[in-house]
Amino acid sequence: MQVESLRELLIAEIRDIYDAEEQIVDELPGIIEKVRSPQLKSALQMHLEETRGQILRLEQVFEKLGEDVEGEKCAGMKGILKEGADAIDDTDEGDVRDAVIIASCQKVEHYEIASYGCVRTWASQLGLNDVAQLLQVTLEEEGNADKKLSQIAESAVNIQAKKVA
Amino acid sequence: MQVESLRELLIAEIRDIYDAEEQIVDELPGIIEKVRSPQLKSALQMHLEETRGQILRLEQVFEKLGEDVEGEKCAGMKGILKEGADAIDDTDEGDVRDAVIIASCQKVEHYEIASYGCVRTWASQLGLNDVAQLLQVTLEEEGNADKKLSQIAESAVNIQAKKVA
Repeated sequence: MQVESLRELLIAEIRDIYDAEEQIVDELPGIIEKVRSPQLKSALQMHLEETRGQILRLEQVFEKLGEDVEGEKCAGMKGILKEGADAIDDTDEGDVRDAVIIASCQKVEHYEIASYGCVRTWASQLGLNDVAQLLQVTLEEEGNADKKLSQIAESAVNIQAKKVA
Repeated sequence: MQVESLRELLIAEIRDIYDAEEQIVDELPGIIEKVRSPQLKSALQMHLEETRGQILRLEQVFEKLGEDVEGEKCAGMKGILKEGADAIDDTDEGDVRDAVIIASCQKVEHYEIASYGCVRTWASQLGLNDVAQLLQVTLEEEGNADKKLSQIAESAVNIQAKKVA
């Protein structure tokens, strides 16, 4: 389908990120099972719940736009999650695997930060302020999730990994 | 190959981002040709040159680590670039396509921000301060490239796209 207006582009990108969020909800529980650090496990469990809320928020966005709730296959997230799964498989349970999991989840977060940043800006430029506000809430959650992962990486998890380096 | 230490993980991720940078250098010229906005074209041309410098910087990192200069297929970047190429194909030349190109390039930048942030932290935790410093320089370049794209998105390109929304 040709995308000819900023509104159509907004809808296409919302469909992309909706599929991306669904991929995350499918994959994250399996990743969480492989985490050793209780702090990291708890942060990812919290983010899984947050992600479910973000999906509901996107459903509100579809409704406000008068569009069907429907994703469009997100190749970017598929590649990021495949790379993460392979990298996790290359490690045994422990601090190094936890460091891989943090890196993989930060790639996921950053994909979302880029995507939500764009759709928030486009919605705002189209004067769809209520849509822009919903997307801004999620954008801030993704930014906070990324910061939390950086904090964990810089403290416990990787310092322990260093011990066995 | 099993990754058992933080140093091995650092090398694996450096190989991943080296391949990612090479993919970008292959794809970006074709993307730049499809841009209409002179401001966006010039920003991406500058970033292409910067990316070539980042590849040289990674080669210095390999040397400092005593490792062969060799990439490892980066599935994440492949997915992001494929998604971008498909989205660009769905548009005709003009403001909406320029907005798609910005979004796609910001996803590329954010992948790199996540990856360079991790390897910088790991190098630093391993006491490899000269490696960490090289990676920090690139991390800052990627952050600035992303901010520049946001500025362009928030000013000329998308405002014009709005006119035809």
